[in-house]
Amino acid sequence: MLFRQLFDPESSTYTYLVADPTTRQAALIDPVLEQLERDLTLVKELGLTLTHVLETHVHADHVTASGQLREHTGCQVVASQGGASCADRHVRHGERVKVGELSFQVLSTPGHTDDSVSYLLGDRVFTGDALMVRGTGRTDFQNGDAGQLYDSITRTLFTLADETLVYPAHDYKGRTVTTIGEEKRFNPRLAGKDRAAFIQLMDELHLPPPKKLDIAVPANRSCGLGPALPQV
Amino acid sequence: MLFRQLFDPESSTYTYLVADPTTRQAALIDPVLEQLERDLTLVKELGLTLTHVLETHVHADHVTASGQLREHTGCQVVASQGGASCADRHVRHGERVKVGELSFQVLSTPGHTDDSVSYLLGDRVFTGDALMVRGTGRTDFQNGDAGQLYDSITRTLFTLADETLVYPAHDYKGRTVTTIGEEKRFNPRLAGKDRAAFIQLMDELHLPPPKKLDIAVPANRSCGLGPALPQV
Repeated sequence: MLFRQLFDPESSTYTYLVADPTTRQAALIDPVLEQLERDLTLVKELGLTLTHVLETHVHADHVTASGQLREHTGCQVVASQGGASCADRHVRHGERVKVGELSFQVLSTPGHTDDSVSYLLGDRVFTGDALMVRGTGRTDFQNGDAGQLYDSITRTLFTLADETLVYPAHDYKGRTVTTIGEEKRFNPRLAGKDRAAFIQLMDELHLPPPKKLDIAVPANRSCGLGPALPQV
Repeated sequence: MLFRQLFDPESSTYTYLVADPTTRQAALIDPVLEQLERDLTLVKELGLTLTHVLETHVHADHVTASGQLREHTGCQVVASQGGASCADRHVRHGERVKVGELSFQVLSTPGHTDDSVSYLLGDRVFTGDALMVRGTGRTDFQNGDAGQLYDSITRTLFTLADETLVYPAHDYKGRTVTTIGEEKRFNPRLAGKDRAAFIQLMDELHLPPPKKLDIAVPANRSCGLGPALPQV
């Protein structure tokens, strides 16, 4: 498998390029509009055909490149049931997305937003903002729900093997990856905390709203192709 | 092998934690002083013993955490011949550094600085500022030499297998890794350029000096333990 982790410094977003080396078919997970040229160049240089964009959720902190990528490559945009209406395919828990000979398994992991999914591929899982390195996504907008997020993490993600590599949609301290086992043991929001304690902790975060919330959410519902978007 | 790529956003420096899963012995490559606590915490959480810090060169853009790490863990600091005098071991081209059952091979790759080395470990090479993603280190201070850098890249690094993963000390565009084959084909400073063209290109860059040059170089010669250093 060809695998590249990419980072958008402005929004601290991780984008993943994952490709099947046999067919050269590729997917981008959570691409960022401002990085469109970088990512298209890399796909071309590596001799890949972009067949899919996989969105983990409707993002509030950056605008997706999915629509532009679809226009440039003809790829299919995949989102969850309840995700961006502009997507070509809306997937449910347990469905699979095939990219060449790679098969991503969809895991429903709502709670950060009501449309959040993770994508499991072999020994690694792309968790979006559900589970991050020693952290989790916030739960105070876009129908976020702390109890639901606790359930998604503890009943779905934490049933994966401890060795499973967890690739999140963000990190703000320069960490690139973690494992399910590590997060069970060391995630300060989860280790040793029951559902009620997690809900209380999330309720008491009182975070400022994401800077791009009002722009990004509607833009992402139209795959980043709506009016008044950043020019790239 | 346990492998973690870590990023310092201020200096855009990549640090690598590499460990032997059998003995749990670990090395940090190019650790950054400001990330001391993050890195010590990770080493502890993963149940590792830090036995080595490997420096690719005396850095000009950040201060190393090597001295502090040695004080905290008793690890050995490894630098090249001509590298920081504070190091416990000075290595030459072809020598090996054993970390548990892992064996890093030292490759002399001067040109960015006169003390630059790369560390080869199986299918991956840690190139410091010699070879970066679609770029190279600059060659206009610390006895940098563009011709020497061209030779280091083309005669040493480019003799590695095309599939070799290249992990650099920096990237400024959110790219985390490349391969030898990609850089042969797509590095704009090298692809299709001979030695004279590379030297001319480097001579004409006219980059501003690194912000921390006057602090970082003397600090790094004493493993980050000199006076007037940033407090962590």
